[in-house]
Amino acid sequence: MSAPAAELSVTVSPLSPGPTVAALLADAQPGETVTVRGWVRTRRDSKAGLSFVELNDGSCLSNLQLVLPHELKEFESRAAPITTGASLVARGEIVESQGKNQRIELRVDDFAVPGGADPDRYPLQKKRHSFEYLREIAHLRPRSNTFGAVARVRNRLSHAAHEFFQERGFLYAHTPIITTNDCEGAGEVFTVTALNAAKLAEAAAAGDFSRDFFGKHAGLTVSGQLEGEVYATSLGPTYTFGPTFRAENSNTPRHLAEFWMIEPEVPFCDLEGDMDLAEAFVKATLAAVREDCAEDLEFFAQRIDKTLPETLDAVANQEFVRLPYTEAIDLLQNSGQSFEYPAEWGHDLQTEHERFLTETHFKRPVIVHDYPASIKPFYMRMNEPDEQGRETVRAMDVLAPRVGEIVGGSQREEREDVLVSRMKGQGIDPASLWWYVELRTYGSVPHAGFGLGLERLVQLATGMQNVRDVIPFPRTPGHAEF
Amino acid sequence: MSAPAAELSVTVSPLSPGPTVAALLADAQPGETVTVRGWVRTRRDSKAGLSFVELNDGSCLSNLQLVLPHELKEFESRAAPITTGASLVARGEIVESQGKNQRIELRVDDFAVPGGADPDRYPLQKKRHSFEYLREIAHLRPRSNTFGAVARVRNRLSHAAHEFFQERGFLYAHTPIITTNDCEGAGEVFTVTALNAAKLAEAAAAGDFSRDFFGKHAGLTVSGQLEGEVYATSLGPTYTFGPTFRAENSNTPRHLAEFWMIEPEVPFCDLEGDMDLAEAFVKATLAAVREDCAEDLEFFAQRIDKTLPETLDAVANQEFVRLPYTEAIDLLQNSGQSFEYPAEWGHDLQTEHERFLTETHFKRPVIVHDYPASIKPFYMRMNEPDEQGRETVRAMDVLAPRVGEIVGGSQREEREDVLVSRMKGQGIDPASLWWYVELRTYGSVPHAGFGLGLERLVQLATGMQNVRDVIPFPRTPGHAEF
Repeated sequence: MSAPAAELSVTVSPLSPGPTVAALLADAQPGETVTVRGWVRTRRDSKAGLSFVELNDGSCLSNLQLVLPHELKEFESRAAPITTGASLVARGEIVESQGKNQRIELRVDDFAVPGGADPDRYPLQKKRHSFEYLREIAHLRPRSNTFGAVARVRNRLSHAAHEFFQERGFLYAHTPIITTNDCEGAGEVFTVTALNAAKLAEAAAAGDFSRDFFGKHAGLTVSGQLEGEVYATSLGPTYTFGPTFRAENSNTPRHLAEFWMIEPEVPFCDLEGDMDLAEAFVKATLAAVREDCAEDLEFFAQRIDKTLPETLDAVANQEFVRLPYTEAIDLLQNSGQSFEYPAEWGHDLQTEHERFLTETHFKRPVIVHDYPASIKPFYMRMNEPDEQGRETVRAMDVLAPRVGEIVGGSQREEREDVLVSRMKGQGIDPASLWWYVELRTYGSVPHAGFGLGLERLVQLATGMQNVRDVIPFPRTPGHAEF
Repeated sequence: MSAPAAELSVTVSPLSPGPTVAALLADAQPGETVTVRGWVRTRRDSKAGLSFVELNDGSCLSNLQLVLPHELKEFESRAAPITTGASLVARGEIVESQGKNQRIELRVDDFAVPGGADPDRYPLQKKRHSFEYLREIAHLRPRSNTFGAVARVRNRLSHAAHEFFQERGFLYAHTPIITTNDCEGAGEVFTVTALNAAKLAEAAAAGDFSRDFFGKHAGLTVSGQLEGEVYATSLGPTYTFGPTFRAENSNTPRHLAEFWMIEPEVPFCDLEGDMDLAEAFVKATLAAVREDCAEDLEFFAQRIDKTLPETLDAVANQEFVRLPYTEAIDLLQNSGQSFEYPAEWGHDLQTEHERFLTETHFKRPVIVHDYPASIKPFYMRMNEPDEQGRETVRAMDVLAPRVGEIVGGSQREEREDVLVSRMKGQGIDPASLWWYVELRTYGSVPHAGFGLGLERLVQLATGMQNVRDVIPFPRTPGHAEF
């Protein structure tokens, strides 16, 4: 027992918070006196007059073992609320652990329980719960091992994205969320309105939103790309990182109504440079996670997806395959594989085709590029027609084993006349995007960029199968709680 | 003239892009051969057979001076499109500059103009334009000195925010944008719907959104705080950084319908710790801008706000004043100052009060804390009533000279019974926020956090007066173009 110490403080300044569990497990030496703050994962009482508490503070997957001697003042009553889920502040001395599962433990000399968790009601008991059940208690699921680990990996990937671009001199630009561009083209758009019910009913019936907040029909963005191009063609390499939306009524493990996209855009860049950038980005962000979240990745490999280390090795150590779409179709057609939907030039690749390429044939990420113009949006740069007169655009998709398309990008059409004619061909009035066209009227440059869905990257890093389990509060048809 | 070189490439890989103008102006030595890519700010032709071009690539405020000898092959026709706004790729040798405005210049031996800019039509000529005019061409305004500088400062502040929290072990959590919580309470909320016009008219008329995408009425978030608390009370210090929305019909230089908020949330933290964190955050992010955007800040001090250096010094070098609300009211009442709205206990501070405190009286940032409970939301922690029986909450606002409230925060009410009673007192059904209440049912901890509007911080750093000029594409009543 160390000497009697000052009163235990439940709160602490965030500027000098004391050591986290992660820091203690890594570095603490026997003899140090420390105070820890966190939540109880388990409690076990021994007949030898000791209680063992596993404390987690979110800094890492592992818990710190606390040993509470029953001779502490009023132990029984004060320790009664120490149950799974309770919050706990404990001070004591670091000692070498007698147990074989940990290097050190904390011999507690004082403690406080700011908040208990009634064991009869606490919804997150020690037993394993299904992911479906945990989605219903999304406010508590970060207290589980899996969702704590997902949160740390997602955080590390997000910051690695910023680091990657900032180190290379890219500007972070906040492109708008509410937009009146109704031709971005990627599926269904949510409507945004500030009208009250009566006026909304009127406006919707008349199809006239001129008295709405923005003076016309407004929606939630499906991509920051078009506005990102504004910054890239003024100020150099740019990226956005923000939420995007799809009002698709898709109830699948791959779809969210709200998700986070990272979209770099680079002037004086062609499709080759774009593919270089995408490959470097995926490798760098995953490398950061392997470096800094090793314990979490080990957990995912054990509990979620045994093939995870192999997949991450393949991404890290091998060049991504670069495969023209036309060659991809040939390869699929001559593969001897029987697909539900046979591969055919002019059609998008199906999931089964993507999986064959990345998991069976190449066993690593594949960048398919130069897709048929007819299946791609107006802003992608047109190639010269091939020998057979087929039209393609300078598009590329990065396909990853298991998660499929993780990046979609293109060189953009920088020729005003070609752009305008493509818009008209797709039924888009160039006047509705006059400002986008004007980027080509004044000081146009070849430029390229891509979009990467953060959730897909988290899935690639963790092996989590359902996209609803890699975002804190998933929005899907029928679900926008919390 | 250097030796004939390989063909000039308009594009370059973003992984090895060559030196930026900023890098060249800082470090380039005479004799180096470099290729630069950017946009023409001005062109001047001398009778001595030289053309002088100021080239900007967005990497810094300054331009690189290019000197193009007229004896270059087919100069006249090839250089004809070199006018303000055109894009330009130029290769040549760095030489000491003869002019007095720059250390070095580029003696060009080859060049290409990917895109011209018809001088009769280009909307952004060399002359100064009003900010009002520039808002109408938001797709071109980043090409002006002011908006380029704003973009760089905004980028630096944004990344400094991430660095600040990541270095301190905070987790970046993406809280939801679409929400069905209709009681967050900060003003008017935009409605989000996926119904088509006919069904929308029906749903709005009936006030029944059960057949809408999310099965009930959904809106755009006004704050990520409530969900941030979920993460902070599970995993430790957390922050969010994302867009938030207000459907207030306010046409002022201080209001946006869409803006970016940074919201840290810290467990085991009280109001003191919260104020420590806010002060450290503002100081650290502004220090990063002073360190890395010195040239831009000098520009703002010269052209936008002469008092800027003084304001930034006051923020950097002095402790923020910490002033209880009750003392603030006394101080204002005894100031001898005549205000349009006299200060009165129980009412919010007016802009004139804030300015008196920060600009006249203390001449530095002031944190006013412990506000009357009646003017603050349900989630702020109740104090014991004061001697006069007045009720206050553990709220704090950081007021900055010139921009006013830049941070609003509080210690949160962690006592379930008090929280529920405050909700009822404000007409909020606790069942509608059952999950938020449950954070107090299970393992509750004292915790605190704040929200900081990024745009206010950019205004503080730059002296820009209108909030519409510090966000790329402002959304205000009647305006959601681009």
